Amino acid sequence: MAPRKLQIAAAGLGRMGHRHALNFLNRTPRAELVAAFTPDPKELEWAREHLEPHGVTLYNDYDKMIAQQGLDAVVIGTATSVHAEEAIKAMQNNLHVLCEKPLSTSIDVCRQVVEEAKKRPHLKVMCGFSRRFDDSYRDAYAKAKKGLIGRPTILRSQTCDKHDPSGFFVEYAAWSGGVFVDMSVHDIDLTLMFFGSDIKPKSISAHGCIAVQPGLARHKDVDNAVGIVEFWGGQIAYYYCSRMMAHGQEDVTEVIGTEGKVSINLNPQSSLVNYYHKGGITREVPPHYYGRFEMAFVREANEFTDACLDDTPLPMQLDNAVRAVEIGAWLQEALVTGKQIHFDENGKRLEKAHL
Amino acid sequence: MAPRKLQIAAAGLGRMGHRHALNFLNRTPRAELVAAFTPDPKELEWAREHLEPHGVTLYNDYDKMIAQQGLDAVVIGTATSVHAEEAIKAMQNNLHVLCEKPLSTSIDVCRQVVEEAKKRPHLKVMCGFSRRFDDSYRDAYAKAKKGLIGRPTILRSQTCDKHDPSGFFVEYAAWSGGVFVDMSVHDIDLTLMFFGSDIKPKSISAHGCIAVQPGLARHKDVDNAVGIVEFWGGQIAYYYCSRMMAHGQEDVTEVIGTEGKVSINLNPQSSLVNYYHKGGITREVPPHYYGRFEMAFVREANEFTDACLDDTPLPMQLDNAVRAVEIGAWLQEALVTGKQIHFDENGKRLEKAHL
Amino acid sequence: MAPRKLQIAAAGLGRMGHRHALNFLNRTPRAELVAAFTPDPKELEWAREHLEPHGVTLYNDYDKMIAQQGLDAVVIGTATSVHAEEAIKAMQNNLHVLCEKPLSTSIDVCRQVVEEAKKRPHLKVMCGFSRRFDDSYRDAYAKAKKGLIGRPTILRSQTCDKHDPSGFFVEYAAWSGGVFVDMSVHDIDLTLMFFGSDIKPKSISAHGCIAVQPGLARHKDVDNAVGIVEFWGGQIAYYYCSRMMAHGQEDVTEVIGTEGKVSINLNPQSSLVNYYHKGGITREVPPHYYGRFEMAFVREANEFTDACLDDTPLPMQLDNAVRAVEIGAWLQEALVTGKQIHFDENGKRLEKAHL
Amino acid sequence: MAPRKLQIAAAGLGRMGHRHALNFLNRTPRAELVAAFTPDPKELEWAREHLEPHGVTLYNDYDKMIAQQGLDAVVIGTATSVHAEEAIKAMQNNLHVLCEKPLSTSIDVCRQVVEEAKKRPHLKVMCGFSRRFDDSYRDAYAKAKKGLIGRPTILRSQTCDKHDPSGFFVEYAAWSGGVFVDMSVHDIDLTLMFFGSDIKPKSISAHGCIAVQPGLARHKDVDNAVGIVEFWGGQIAYYYCSRMMAHGQEDVTEVIGTEGKVSINLNPQSSLVNYYHKGGITREVPPHYYGRFEMAFVREANEFTDACLDDTPLPMQLDNAVRAVEIGAWLQEALVTGKQIHFDENGKRLEKAHL
Repeated sequence: MAPRKLQIAAAGLGRMGHRHALNFLNRTPRAELVAAFTPDPKELEWAREHLEPHGVTLYNDYDKMIAQQGLDAVVIGTATSVHAEEAIKAMQNNLHVLCEKPLSTSIDVCRQVVEEAKKRPHLKVMCGFSRRFDDSYRDAYAKAKKGLIGRPTILRSQTCDKHDPSGFFVEYAAWSGGVFVDMSVHDIDLTLMFFGSDIKPKSISAHGCIAVQPGLARHKDVDNAVGIVEFWGGQIAYYYCSRMMAHGQEDVTEVIGTEGKVSINLNPQSSLVNYYHKGGITREVPPHYYGRFEMAFVREANEFTDACLDDTPLPMQLDNAVRAVEIGAWLQEALVTGKQIHFDENGKRLEKAHL
Repeated sequence: MAPRKLQIAAAGLGRMGHRHALNFLNRTPRAELVAAFTPDPKELEWAREHLEPHGVTLYNDYDKMIAQQGLDAVVIGTATSVHAEEAIKAMQNNLHVLCEKPLSTSIDVCRQVVEEAKKRPHLKVMCGFSRRFDDSYRDAYAKAKKGLIGRPTILRSQTCDKHDPSGFFVEYAAWSGGVFVDMSVHDIDLTLMFFGSDIKPKSISAHGCIAVQPGLARHKDVDNAVGIVEFWGGQIAYYYCSRMMAHGQEDVTEVIGTEGKVSINLNPQSSLVNYYHKGGITREVPPHYYGRFEMAFVREANEFTDACLDDTPLPMQLDNAVRAVEIGAWLQEALVTGKQIHFDENGKRLEKAHL
Repeated sequence: MAPRKLQIAAAGLGRMGHRHALNFLNRTPRAELVAAFTPDPKELEWAREHLEPHGVTLYNDYDKMIAQQGLDAVVIGTATSVHAEEAIKAMQNNLHVLCEKPLSTSIDVCRQVVEEAKKRPHLKVMCGFSRRFDDSYRDAYAKAKKGLIGRPTILRSQTCDKHDPSGFFVEYAAWSGGVFVDMSVHDIDLTLMFFGSDIKPKSISAHGCIAVQPGLARHKDVDNAVGIVEFWGGQIAYYYCSRMMAHGQEDVTEVIGTEGKVSINLNPQSSLVNYYHKGGITREVPPHYYGRFEMAFVREANEFTDACLDDTPLPMQLDNAVRAVEIGAWLQEALVTGKQIHFDENGKRLEKAHL
Repeated sequence: MAPRKLQIAAAGLGRMGHRHALNFLNRTPRAELVAAFTPDPKELEWAREHLEPHGVTLYNDYDKMIAQQGLDAVVIGTATSVHAEEAIKAMQNNLHVLCEKPLSTSIDVCRQVVEEAKKRPHLKVMCGFSRRFDDSYRDAYAKAKKGLIGRPTILRSQTCDKHDPSGFFVEYAAWSGGVFVDMSVHDIDLTLMFFGSDIKPKSISAHGCIAVQPGLARHKDVDNAVGIVEFWGGQIAYYYCSRMMAHGQEDVTEVIGTEGKVSINLNPQSSLVNYYHKGGITREVPPHYYGRFEMAFVREANEFTDACLDDTPLPMQLDNAVRAVEIGAWLQEALVTGKQIHFDENGKRLEKAHL
């Protein structure tokens, strides 16, 4: 008898959503994409052509989709504003959940998802941070774990997007939670990975500026920001996020320990080709994060599927997703208010929230 | 109605054969692996666990497998010595064929396969040279095609394996055709890709030595060899193949044109990690060719499938596979005899075969 | 008639002082080292062997040395604590001055040197920041100047030393001014170079920790620190300094503009050699800053000499040396007090000094 | 008393000659440039401005120059055709000799120089191969010497010049000895360095083509050539030389041993800067060999001076310079005749010279 496959539905078929759907359709051998939902007529049209012929039932109503018979799980790739609600509803329908990051830009809402998940420990609920599934980050982490760099002490990490002059990111800033929540949240998650998920911030500073997208001022956001999180116990993470890169996506991390260092993607490249010409030697850079992390998303789909089918632990804890957003929000607060934030050793904030 | 999928069978489940089988099972959305054959009881046992549960019918008789109802195609990953016979039988059973390289180490046998294929132009018959399906080679080729390097004039290419002290390659040398046929054939195929498949050799030189595998002398083979092929029209390719690398697989190509150059994999790496330590900065290298070319094999499976289902041209011509082996065999002859080989402008050999 | 050479004296023959002396002796064709001073008997002994035979008069009294007949200039490479006094005395003796950085760890003392220099505009007085004389920084600056990266917006720069377990840096911390004044001052100077010497800080944050040199706590210093300086007008510089590197010196700078970026020394290397071995591919890193910047010091000596002999402008302004120390001291204050520092648009500090 | 300095004269003030003169004038502390000769009025004019004021006596007659009182040595940087004659005359005048490579393009003439030198063992006579004095080659050699790569087995080395469309190299080919003698001689010398100066060729193959300089046909030369030298004892060197590079000078060497490999300058760069822009990430390449090897020439001058003054062994043997030219000439013969060359184990040629 053929092994049972995870029956999964995809919610949202936009930029990232349709990639999740295709990954579960084509590149996750132990899963079967059986349903997909989108409120968007254009996306639905796309699904008619690319999903329906493969036996995927289409919906324009999320609630109806998650009620489909035999469904085991849902992957949520809709707009951030509905992530939490959809995740909670799915759990209430007894479905495993793989949710695009972030659960929400609101910490309180994030926590509701975590609370709901705690009530249903038999369900696998994961908020996907793609870098955790990337070969290179895995390799670096394994080296750190083996003690090759001593005690990880300083983490530098940046998320830098290619400049998009279309104005998309100005509109996006209205509800993205700000650059630290939207972009650096990945770098913060890596900090939890390398420093441990129980580290406690001691103080937080952040600075930013608008260089290429003047419209961001309207949303109190910036297109370049630098932040520092100092942790109790003598560890520091510092972040740079930017939407101004001329050359492409440049997501770099360095973890510096007392006895060595690992760097990840210090020299970004879109292939193993160098082109030699009158002006020198040039290599190209992936224009977008999916060019850098495509295989990480595929692995994410597969590992989530394994955990659901085999009832094994997920590769990352849901709590971290909240912690990462929380630290991101503090950085954003420090950025917007121009004030440092301090915490006591128990993690208690020492001054009133500036905002 | 679900789109029709290519019904494919896998012949051979050894080192490379089982990877082809799994790629068609799991990573080729438009194909369905429906049958598999191996004469090896251990491989059959593996298949019982990994293939049979997914609806793959198993055979220990090739002829029976290719007679299975509804079959469209076969992927051949058996020992080189039976490639040609199996390919011909498959064609005679009206099946498309994807055959691991080489078709044969004998030019005459290679030609028989080509002859058979010519008789059945409706069948897709491809001998897979993985590098043709690699992103980086594709990128380099696109740049050359656009004229970015002027006229391609010099091609340097090497196939260098990590040293395997097990003695495997000594045994293997008995029937591999020699290092130029077994290893450099990839580099020769790239030469046909970048210089054009109609180029004609003018003269060929080759030299080799045994450095780490003394047993190779028994089979008149070497573990390090360098060869040059000069072509009519003023183009030169030179090759290095070795089984002596301490650090891992190092397959490098440079194409030097009158106005620029492209290099592929000049700095091999197994991930984007650098490790900084007392001795400096270290990056690791894939230990085997599959670590370098895994995704190329996946793309090969998919593009072969597309060509079969859509009746579109294959991405590479079968003739080239013969040409590559032929040039490899001449290099091997030049190596073994210590004599240069010359050709006239029509491609006619100017001296008697030395062997 | 032989062209006149700059008659120069060297003050201090310690780690850096003796290198300046040798550079003026051997690698500055238009200068002649005619005198050297050190209060240290061991250094004097060294000078007897290496300088005296070449016609260099030795002194153990600075005042006597600068009174030597015919002297044009002095290069000061003594301990930081006497830099300023010696520089002022030299000017009062009508000598050009090349002073090792910093002029002083005290801003007030720095300013006295600048005041003295302003009184004597015919004298060339330079505080050497070696990176300004480095080929690669010059190249990067030329590219920025040409507009290749648009408007420089973000500057990331780090000064990272190889870990020295001897305890030297613990003692040194007693009078170094702290890591931001001692180490990051180079990165701050580069900021003035790339952003312009008239930029005004808006706010400053800094965080640090002690990871490998517990004794530093005694001197309120750290061995790893990260700081951010936000400038009025929408530019940000951020710095990392560390004395913990396992692999060697790693001084890296990136200047990110609205239309491109330049990086300098992102991949440090002590030579053009890569070593391939069982563990991968390794390149070594210079163990000390002199391994990275030796030729910059030689160029510094030559360009200083040219400016003195030809009465042409110095390649860097003395004011910058004070500005760099000032910003370094603010970063150090922010680090030690755990408080952010703010300035109005005229550069006026908005809160009382925390210290 | 001031230490005695080597009194040296410079013969030839052309492209390379004037650099030698300046290096001995300014960057060789233990030497003093006291005389210079050139038959060229323009070069003499240059010398009036740049050398004479520093006490250098100028000559337009070589014989008169080497008769100058008190002279110890001469550095020969004239045209290749007079190297040997000038070297012999200098020795006959009891002068040490540093001669630009090659001694001659004729083996017989080379040997006369060696014979003359053997008669006067108290003289230091060196034919400079710059790469022997380069930091990176020294570093690689030290690693090989330590056994880090096992037994050096394969050497790949290339000398590739930036394309010069001026026609200079066409004229130059009339008397250069051909590309293997003019360019690859450096790579051959490195072979003697890494494999040992007593290795014996077993067989030699070479192929070439004209891609960008059609005029070379006139001189039976090419602008791209590849050659292989197989040595008795199981070692192989292979070379590529070209005058067609679009991007700049690219001199690369790899030495592959039974247990590891060293590469030198695999990724050429003119500085430590990377420039990030819309098209990717670009680094520049030195346009000429002097941009790559400037400091090697300085070290050469200094080490030659040391050997003369201290009567210590020279860093390289004169014999090697002849051996390198000899092998270069065989490669050139193999190239021009299209025939392989073979030698017995005693180094005796097995067929008549083809030319």
